[in-house]
Amino acid sequence: MADSRKVGVLGGGQLGRMLIEAANRLNIQVNVLDAAASPAKQISAHEGHIEGSFKDAAAVKKLAQACDVVTVEIEHVDTHMLEEVAGEVAVEPSWKTLRTIKDKYAQKEYLKEHGVDVAESEDLEGKGVEGLKAVGERFGYPFMLKSKTEAYDGRGNFVVKTADDVDAAIKALGDRPLYAERWANFRMELAVMVVKTKDGVLTFPTVETVHEDSICKLTYAPPRNVSKATTERAQQLAKKAIGAFEGKGVFGHAPSPSTMPTSAPSSTSPSPSALRLREPSIMLNILGGKTPDSHIQVAHKAYASPNASIHLYGKGDARPGRKMGHITVTAPSLAEAEREIQPLVDFVDSQKGKPLGPRTGPTTEAPLVAVIMGSDSDLPVLKAGLQILEKLQVPFTVRITSAHRTPDWLREFSKKAADSELRVIIGAAGGAAHLPGMCASWTTLPVIGLPVKATHMDGWDSLVSMTQMPRGEPVATVGINNSTNAALLAVRILGATDLAVRERLRVWMEGNEKEVLRKDRELLDQGFEKYLKGMGKW
Amino acid sequence: MADSRKVGVLGGGQLGRMLIEAANRLNIQVNVLDAAASPAKQISAHEGHIEGSFKDAAAVKKLAQACDVVTVEIEHVDTHMLEEVAGEVAVEPSWKTLRTIKDKYAQKEYLKEHGVDVAESEDLEGKGVEGLKAVGERFGYPFMLKSKTEAYDGRGNFVVKTADDVDAAIKALGDRPLYAERWANFRMELAVMVVKTKDGVLTFPTVETVHEDSICKLTYAPPRNVSKATTERAQQLAKKAIGAFEGKGVFGHAPSPSTMPTSAPSSTSPSPSALRLREPSIMLNILGGKTPDSHIQVAHKAYASPNASIHLYGKGDARPGRKMGHITVTAPSLAEAEREIQPLVDFVDSQKGKPLGPRTGPTTEAPLVAVIMGSDSDLPVLKAGLQILEKLQVPFTVRITSAHRTPDWLREFSKKAADSELRVIIGAAGGAAHLPGMCASWTTLPVIGLPVKATHMDGWDSLVSMTQMPRGEPVATVGINNSTNAALLAVRILGATDLAVRERLRVWMEGNEKEVLRKDRELLDQGFEKYLKGMGKW
Repeated sequence: MADSRKVGVLGGGQLGRMLIEAANRLNIQVNVLDAAASPAKQISAHEGHIEGSFKDAAAVKKLAQACDVVTVEIEHVDTHMLEEVAGEVAVEPSWKTLRTIKDKYAQKEYLKEHGVDVAESEDLEGKGVEGLKAVGERFGYPFMLKSKTEAYDGRGNFVVKTADDVDAAIKALGDRPLYAERWANFRMELAVMVVKTKDGVLTFPTVETVHEDSICKLTYAPPRNVSKATTERAQQLAKKAIGAFEGKGVFGHAPSPSTMPTSAPSSTSPSPSALRLREPSIMLNILGGKTPDSHIQVAHKAYASPNASIHLYGKGDARPGRKMGHITVTAPSLAEAEREIQPLVDFVDSQKGKPLGPRTGPTTEAPLVAVIMGSDSDLPVLKAGLQILEKLQVPFTVRITSAHRTPDWLREFSKKAADSELRVIIGAAGGAAHLPGMCASWTTLPVIGLPVKATHMDGWDSLVSMTQMPRGEPVATVGINNSTNAALLAVRILGATDLAVRERLRVWMEGNEKEVLRKDRELLDQGFEKYLKGMGKW
Repeated sequence: MADSRKVGVLGGGQLGRMLIEAANRLNIQVNVLDAAASPAKQISAHEGHIEGSFKDAAAVKKLAQACDVVTVEIEHVDTHMLEEVAGEVAVEPSWKTLRTIKDKYAQKEYLKEHGVDVAESEDLEGKGVEGLKAVGERFGYPFMLKSKTEAYDGRGNFVVKTADDVDAAIKALGDRPLYAERWANFRMELAVMVVKTKDGVLTFPTVETVHEDSICKLTYAPPRNVSKATTERAQQLAKKAIGAFEGKGVFGHAPSPSTMPTSAPSSTSPSPSALRLREPSIMLNILGGKTPDSHIQVAHKAYASPNASIHLYGKGDARPGRKMGHITVTAPSLAEAEREIQPLVDFVDSQKGKPLGPRTGPTTEAPLVAVIMGSDSDLPVLKAGLQILEKLQVPFTVRITSAHRTPDWLREFSKKAADSELRVIIGAAGGAAHLPGMCASWTTLPVIGLPVKATHMDGWDSLVSMTQMPRGEPVATVGINNSTNAALLAVRILGATDLAVRERLRVWMEGNEKEVLRKDRELLDQGFEKYLKGMGKW
């Protein structure tokens, strides 16, 4: 036994199961309170488990007596019994935290008190139809009507679209403790896992979560088309929110905002100090479907996917919408992961009878190469290079930014470049061609200079403005007007680590070699006269 | 249940445990035949396990009756009972294969018959002292004396160094069935995991294994300083060897040669078609040590290692040398993984009382940048650049290869470059400077051209020989004699994907910025006269 202390967990669902998978590797005994053969218990064979409900006070007490520390996989537990046993056994996170977050309205008020920005909300308990109508006038429509407790995966929530919906809303949720939340117009949901230890608060990288029918369907790590500044802000917000609560543990927090203690997802490193994710990766939740084996079919389909890691939770009964497992695809780039997971997403959608129709996602592929030019007059010179990037399937973006006419925009672009997905910049300019050199001075990315032949000096001015950069800020200069080579250099730089890109380049080069060899044979066969005639040069 | 078929495994040690970890994720029931609470059983709670020995025929029969397919975690099993049950249940790999490989001499003969190169060996059963002496004369000393059966981790092996060792060898192993093997002078051991399915034979990437006291201590993925051609040859050899045997399964094969069916190491992708490893990574085996908790101490020390993944096997009694667990460190480069795992290796060595003394490994770091020059007269120009690479901790190699005096050597070097660890090439040349351009024509790697000022034309000749390459094969040209910028460009290219390198570059550039700002302040404070005097220019 690596550590003789025993951990007790209230709840043995999929989160408890993933917690135990990590604990097994460290040989730590985890005692689970839940029904017999619950998902977590299936992968943990010892006599210390307790059979019963994690909402049952006596069972919680029994568990606490057999453990050194007690935690939860879900917040819907008996916090009063946890309070009672907290004197004898460590309870993490604190029962106070669990009691606060069990009530979503209380949770929100608590976060607000601690300086965390949350959507505006109003207590509606006991206020009935009139209360709802008053909120509708104050917040405007639509607004969210939510149950304070026992709400998850969209259950206990109601979108009140107009005043006419109020009766239906009361009918749907009227027997619950309610509050209203102002409608938040959001572009996407970002989520951050937070770990609180005795030494401090640490965050995992920010991920993007995509919901369907109010249940998380896909998770993207890293988020699609989100700046590093935004992902860092999400981490800071999550850190502040979880920092406000008492107790240690792993917390799942989405700024939407719902807060729920949970175990680390299985794609994370099991090392407690390593808050990294295997990125880029995309996770697809496998839900119960129309037939009892719908979820098994999805798992079997994933066998064909070389980078897919399949997790099935060992839940018996596959009710529609029940979380039965997940599939994680990890690839060298998020775009590749998207390409690989798409057939699985399509399969899940076809199971639901959703028409595939025109593909909505992936919307855009993050560009790896930025092509910038001082003036749109450089664009015709760039044409051949842009076609090479397209041919070799390198995602790129083209922008106009002049070192002299838009120095601030060039500075802003260059300073932010290294924080984006960009890996190479091509700068085309003519004359006193400062563009790539200035860009290189503001970024750590490799900058390729394409000298464009301007009015005077036959391009020499542009060429030496790029090659003769001072020691410290190099510009990788190619031939005058040779945008093909600028693009191919970018491809080689990407190919230095991305072997798929390198292979496409190799095949392309091989094609060129064959083409020249073919011409040589033709010249030999025809003789130079006939060949020149064929060229129209005789 | 994802698949209602049940798998039976003979043996519930660490290999069985890792097999079950993978099976748990796919929700496949695995019935283990071994002692109660053996490592594999600890993470698999159901009623299907059999208590007993995997060498006991009755127990094997009982297991077979409760499963749809039977496999083994170790070859030292009762193959006669497996032969008997093979009619009623699938046995994979075949009992014939297991019977052959249980006897290492028979295994070797079998491989030889199937065209697989193995070390020369000779049967010594019943030949006594005289047989050994005869082999010593035929093979020369030293040679290996080996037990045909029940030999692993160096047990059952004896190095016969001289004719004087023969009596001691007979004393040590005389009661066993013996054979002799010609001494193999090997530089390193490479190992390949092989998967045989109904559709064919697949291999995992080749790894390097390092043994101490005849037990595997460290595993490097990829191997250190080994060409792609060699790792591929090892994969082909392993594929041929395992292809020669009947039956499906995951096989561990080291060309040393020992062949043993085993489960995939836990660092592999669980997807059955994805024969990839998480690379670069280094695995350190945790063995039982001097005190009962020596191995626990190693695991605790690894908590501080951000990229370490710890596996403890749940074995009760930690005898010295017993495999208790392993630690895998995965990092962006093998060199970083080496730096991170070294404190753990040092700790293990100190536990054993081994003096740390002068570090023997890591011997060399695979170069990421090759600096090539047409003549040693270019070396003084390169000095500043090489110092930059050293300062920013980029492993590099420097070679002399002239496009005109050693065209074949340049061609060979350039053609092989992309198959090595190299990611960037810097070519320095003067005059009709063909070196980087020819190199670029033979490789897909990015090539940086450093024009060196030669006798005439002030360097213009070198500069345009590089920039003006034809469309198709770009050379990333920097300023004349500016090796600093050539090196910094190589650093930027590596930093496009390696964020640690990028961060070192950022800090270095920040230092330069501060230095110029400091000078500006000094100039302002002193005035230009005094400043010029300080420079000795007034």
